[in-house]
Amino acid sequence: MRLFSSPSEVGAQTGDAAWLRAMLDFEAAFAGALADVGLAAAVTAEEIMVRCAVGDMESAGVGHDWDIDALGAGTARDGTPVPALLAQLRTHLSDDAKAILHRGATSQDVVDTAAMLVAKRALVPLLADLDAAAEAAAALAERHRADLAAGRTLLQQAAPITFGLRAANWLSGFDDAAVLLAAVRDERLAVQLGGAAGNLAALGGVTGTSGAGAADSTAETSPPLGDRGLAVADALARRLDLAAPAVPWHSNRSRPVELAAALGQAAGAAGKVGTDVVLLAQTEVAEVAEGQPGASSAMPHKRNPTAAVTAAAAARRTPGLVATMFAAMPGEQERAAGAWQAEAETLAELLRLTGVAVAAARRSLEGLEVFPDRMRANVEASGDLGANDELIDRALAAHRARTGGIA
Amino acid sequence: MRLFSSPSEVGAQTGDAAWLRAMLDFEAAFAGALADVGLAAAVTAEEIMVRCAVGDMESAGVGHDWDIDALGAGTARDGTPVPALLAQLRTHLSDDAKAILHRGATSQDVVDTAAMLVAKRALVPLLADLDAAAEAAAALAERHRADLAAGRTLLQQAAPITFGLRAANWLSGFDDAAVLLAAVRDERLAVQLGGAAGNLAALGGVTGTSGAGAADSTAETSPPLGDRGLAVADALARRLDLAAPAVPWHSNRSRPVELAAALGQAAGAAGKVGTDVVLLAQTEVAEVAEGQPGASSAMPHKRNPTAAVTAAAAARRTPGLVATMFAAMPGEQERAAGAWQAEAETLAELLRLTGVAVAAARRSLEGLEVFPDRMRANVEASGDLGANDELIDRALAAHRARTGGIA
Amino acid sequence: MRLFSSPSEVGAQTGDAAWLRAMLDFEAAFAGALADVGLAAAVTAEEIMVRCAVGDMESAGVGHDWDIDALGAGTARDGTPVPALLAQLRTHLSDDAKAILHRGATSQDVVDTAAMLVAKRALVPLLADLDAAAEAAAALAERHRADLAAGRTLLQQAAPITFGLRAANWLSGFDDAAVLLAAVRDERLAVQLGGAAGNLAALGGVTGTSGAGAADSTAETSPPLGDRGLAVADALARRLDLAAPAVPWHSNRSRPVELAAALGQAAGAAGKVGTDVVLLAQTEVAEVAEGQPGASSAMPHKRNPTAAVTAAAAARRTPGLVATMFAAMPGEQERAAGAWQAEAETLAELLRLTGVAVAAARRSLEGLEVFPDRMRANVEASGDLGANDELIDRALAAHRARTGGIA
Amino acid sequence: MRLFSSPSEVGAQTGDAAWLRAMLDFEAAFAGALADVGLAAAVTAEEIMVRCAVGDMESAGVGHDWDIDALGAGTARDGTPVPALLAQLRTHLSDDAKAILHRGATSQDVVDTAAMLVAKRALVPLLADLDAAAEAAAALAERHRADLAAGRTLLQQAAPITFGLRAANWLSGFDDAAVLLAAVRDERLAVQLGGAAGNLAALGGVTGTSGAGAADSTAETSPPLGDRGLAVADALARRLDLAAPAVPWHSNRSRPVELAAALGQAAGAAGKVGTDVVLLAQTEVAEVAEGQPGASSAMPHKRNPTAAVTAAAAARRTPGLVATMFAAMPGEQERAAGAWQAEAETLAELLRLTGVAVAAARRSLEGLEVFPDRMRANVEASGDLGANDELIDRALAAHRARTGGIA
Repeated sequence: MRLFSSPSEVGAQTGDAAWLRAMLDFEAAFAGALADVGLAAAVTAEEIMVRCAVGDMESAGVGHDWDIDALGAGTARDGTPVPALLAQLRTHLSDDAKAILHRGATSQDVVDTAAMLVAKRALVPLLADLDAAAEAAAALAERHRADLAAGRTLLQQAAPITFGLRAANWLSGFDDAAVLLAAVRDERLAVQLGGAAGNLAALGGVTGTSGAGAADSTAETSPPLGDRGLAVADALARRLDLAAPAVPWHSNRSRPVELAAALGQAAGAAGKVGTDVVLLAQTEVAEVAEGQPGASSAMPHKRNPTAAVTAAAAARRTPGLVATMFAAMPGEQERAAGAWQAEAETLAELLRLTGVAVAAARRSLEGLEVFPDRMRANVEASGDLGANDELIDRALAAHRARTGGIA
Repeated sequence: MRLFSSPSEVGAQTGDAAWLRAMLDFEAAFAGALADVGLAAAVTAEEIMVRCAVGDMESAGVGHDWDIDALGAGTARDGTPVPALLAQLRTHLSDDAKAILHRGATSQDVVDTAAMLVAKRALVPLLADLDAAAEAAAALAERHRADLAAGRTLLQQAAPITFGLRAANWLSGFDDAAVLLAAVRDERLAVQLGGAAGNLAALGGVTGTSGAGAADSTAETSPPLGDRGLAVADALARRLDLAAPAVPWHSNRSRPVELAAALGQAAGAAGKVGTDVVLLAQTEVAEVAEGQPGASSAMPHKRNPTAAVTAAAAARRTPGLVATMFAAMPGEQERAAGAWQAEAETLAELLRLTGVAVAAARRSLEGLEVFPDRMRANVEASGDLGANDELIDRALAAHRARTGGIA
Repeated sequence: MRLFSSPSEVGAQTGDAAWLRAMLDFEAAFAGALADVGLAAAVTAEEIMVRCAVGDMESAGVGHDWDIDALGAGTARDGTPVPALLAQLRTHLSDDAKAILHRGATSQDVVDTAAMLVAKRALVPLLADLDAAAEAAAALAERHRADLAAGRTLLQQAAPITFGLRAANWLSGFDDAAVLLAAVRDERLAVQLGGAAGNLAALGGVTGTSGAGAADSTAETSPPLGDRGLAVADALARRLDLAAPAVPWHSNRSRPVELAAALGQAAGAAGKVGTDVVLLAQTEVAEVAEGQPGASSAMPHKRNPTAAVTAAAAARRTPGLVATMFAAMPGEQERAAGAWQAEAETLAELLRLTGVAVAAARRSLEGLEVFPDRMRANVEASGDLGANDELIDRALAAHRARTGGIA
Repeated sequence: MRLFSSPSEVGAQTGDAAWLRAMLDFEAAFAGALADVGLAAAVTAEEIMVRCAVGDMESAGVGHDWDIDALGAGTARDGTPVPALLAQLRTHLSDDAKAILHRGATSQDVVDTAAMLVAKRALVPLLADLDAAAEAAAALAERHRADLAAGRTLLQQAAPITFGLRAANWLSGFDDAAVLLAAVRDERLAVQLGGAAGNLAALGGVTGTSGAGAADSTAETSPPLGDRGLAVADALARRLDLAAPAVPWHSNRSRPVELAAALGQAAGAAGKVGTDVVLLAQTEVAEVAEGQPGASSAMPHKRNPTAAVTAAAAARRTPGLVATMFAAMPGEQERAAGAWQAEAETLAELLRLTGVAVAAARRSLEGLEVFPDRMRANVEASGDLGANDELIDRALAAHRARTGGIA
């Protein structure tokens, strides 16, 4: 839906066009990988790569070459869009190219690897927003390190802190999430290549000049060479710039849940900021205001902290999606009958909503107006500030250590 | 996304076009309701109704008159699409019409009432699929009432039953869900009209000829008449064919969660069928097969029970969404800062996925091939069939009592 | 755990002792039902009933006659505590009684029916708390119907309301939940009796004097009479004061999810009050205070709104449990291998936590101190009160209509 | 509850006694830490440590010295058991000891640090079970590396694999979870010490001989020395063998959710094994059987794969709890009013259920009977085995690399 969601780069990277592109990238790289290890002629692989090259497809432009609705209908018929995509792909391919297209791969290989590509690409703007949100928090921590504020527990004033310390705690949440997301991106986003049942059986023994159809000529024209399968997987990983896993993960869904958990954590860090900003912006508290408050249809004079509300709302929608990903782990045998199929759209939505939450938190913090006088006036209890400065410095130092920057 | 989802009528009723139409229906009916109670001139209300009349908008056609992306940008800015929608609506309206458009309503009134309209409309095809799925189960129960089958507990053969009894139990699940969904539709889908803070304060005293802007002329031109607010709400309910609630439910989210729970239950009933069909269709069990099995990209000879898998997959995604709706109940004060904003898309997705699950279960059952010989051959234990016939009859009788039909 | 939870009547009705009692009540009533329909001698049934009679077992007293840990070990070994319970039950039983004990029933019959009994009993104190919370809200609505307060949306002051209207909206939430819970209690809490595979097969043909063991003499000594099974089920329902379902629900989990959803809604209504009270009790808002605020280990002068926090905390824990119940619907065939087994403790915890939330909301509201002067002083915007009085009257009237009382 | 759960070491480490011990350990170590940095006399700290020393409390023995029910009642009154615990602790303490007990700490410091201690201790048996489950899978992978089996996708036979490869994939899931859990244990389980509002304000300037009460004499007797707070935190971490965080995490809930996610993943890996074993043990498949199958109350001849069912059931209950932990991230300001309070019991239950799932998976695998003849007979399609051996070797090698053992 676009009505309740602003367009965003993360959103664009998780939509139909992005998934289509990622699936085509798989087929192209897979053909290339077959060539890399000598299982296909370079010229044949090249033909497939040209056919799959679509560049950065915009939603609007997808319809030009590809019939998304037909792929959706294919999903309804086959449970995945891959057979329908292959049918569209084969159009205009030579017999040689048809013979190696998707040769030995299975639908799950395409969708799982595409999910990793989609995630990797969506993480670029998402991590940029996360870093910018962290920078904004860091700047607030620095700027307001001495600005007295009421510390509140159970929403009762407890003891004085500074606004800088509050911002340092936000920073700490963003940094934790960024560390985790970066680690998942670098170490856990991997190609999936297992073939029909996960042992890469059909990936050996194919010659690039076989005229046989894609799926029914397994291992007859030449002897299977199982160890070629692993070489293909490695070549595929190199071409897609994803990790090459020790073993296929078609039935071990650790990677998707680790990604989901890291996303949920990033959304939670953003939601934390949203919650706090909303509370600080209350009419009766009035310690902060958003720079670009939203309009109310009934009361245009109201200054709604819309970005904070948006972060809080998006964050609230992520735990249920995280749970769906975890609940999909115990799928049946070599490919689940329902659990696996529940993952792709859930992951896409989780990426998108985390993107919404983090971008909104960034927007809220970057434009945040802070009113130190009001904060000081609100403080009811006296008290010393303890390790205020050192804690802020520690949070900033950890942030700089992570980003290598100068906060 | 369309890539992983086949187009469906429920899907069409829960997309951007459907929500836009529902919001326009609100504004049209609201103008009409103001006229109904004498707060607006009939001709002015008529002008708004004409402007809002869009018929059954198709996704493709929405862009003609309305800029969905601009509405999404409005959501990003304002937290809801309503202010942006009103801005688009005001174009080409006379001053008189501008003066009463949305007069005294608030964004939440629009979105909440639209959600109920969207749900009511989506429930038409959804309940049709649910009834058809129930009929298919009833027909299987009748047809196979004497066909011996292994009853399985913990997936171990336990004692013999009949396939008819299994189908009767499926039927019972569909009927329970249908009873609940119909009750929610008839009794709990209600208009929301509360105004800025839920007391219908600004709905009195407006004259249709006021030239004032929509939001800043409250209650000055004429004395507020609070009891007109309730009359407007009643008129609005009549015009939209929704229930008129005793009190506004802006801060009491019982209605959305009751809807969500009924949807989750329908999805669960569909998922139950999906799970069972997948198990019965196993290669080693082979007691049923789907009429239109899906293709495998790697093994075209495989007969995948795709509809059952689709039902199981969609059902798996609903509990997390149901949880999100329940978690949104305890929102802050007169309108929540995050909880309420999390509801609309979640509800839309829950409607859509329940629709996918139920339609797939229907498809699976309507085309199901049942192999009584194989079922009998699989039965390892002997035993009597107990109350088999009477239980089947009871399930069918309950179904007929519900549907008034002859199953 | 008892450390983080105060003892409560709902808690006591959902613990081990309550479940043990409910399972024994099943076996007693089942023996009685066999006698009722002539499948057992009255004196033999009586012997079992005496053996199973434990009265209201307190946690402390359970160990006297029953070895709970041994039952837990039985669960580990058998997946349910029923075989171990039967083993303990058989001690000191005559051969005649052994022959009919549990005769034809299956573990799921015991656990499912016990769950319904546990729920029914736990609902007594829970609904009492819910009604008392509603009464407290009603009293606040009446008492403060004219006390001006700031209406707040997105935690920004929007337009004035009265505190009475806010309380009326709380009341409305409690009433909705109470209506639903009462309906579930009266119509949906039903005995489960299906026997090994759900067709009541083994319930016929048993003579009370058979010396055969409990589980291995099915249907040999006399011809099975399937229609006796349904009569037994009806007699069982009468004896346990539960509904007699048209068909067994061993594989149709609609009843448990309907109960779970109603509980989640009650918890949500309580959490709503908790959220609002916490916000109104903020140091900077100070419009209410709890009568018995909790202590802080660091700051004894703080007045923490502990009851409201407790309600909010318990409510937050329920959506995940509701989701687990919904996710358990699509279990495998005649008894699931995991989904069903996940239900009992989840339901117990959901009952308990809903009890905690509702009792805490009641406590918060019953002792709530409201400060009208501060509320009025906080109101920043002027405006009329719209339908304030009529809305309060409507909420109160709906409440009175439900409770038959005079609020 | 003990009725539906077998006693287990993980369970014992997550119950009331374990939490009480952990909270006492906090107070003891905290007193010691004050002495370590010169804020308390060693003899005074020693007195507190003696009072808090309880060794490994058994449930049965807890009541001897501590009144758990009174602590629960304290939770009801205060929102946490800490004030009531301190009251019990102060009995028999000298005035000097009373003056430094809990001095400058807050309830959240106790509960959060106790949660980390509870987790660390519960992870000992949990990781032992996880490692043993992995070893069992590794042994199966090695032993059955050449035993042909049907690979099944969507529960349809797809292409042949070996049972060894299936076990290698299970192994891979366990190893992923173990790596993650060990990393969380080593790097993320940290003390929490922040004082009333998170800046360690009240931790300076205390003299061990002050006769003042625990909570109301802050910073008057001597000047606050904020940097002592951090030194206390470091000393506390050393004494409790937990990590010393750069900054307190009272408002940044990343650590609890990282722990929760790792637990959910371990449960998912166990649930995967449970799901597969149940399917392979089906009457019609019969490729495996559990060594110690559970009893059925209705059919004693049945061989229920109880351990696998238990693993699947426990795993199904974890995603909702994981979601509750993620949903608690965005709590209000310096300590949430509901979100934080929802964590402790949820985390305890998540630890316990993950323990149940992993222990059951271990039990299932360690006793698993595998029937290679039947597996071979079930295989319908022919095909080569691809990279079977190399994949098994890779999974085993990764396992050995992780455990340093010889699998």
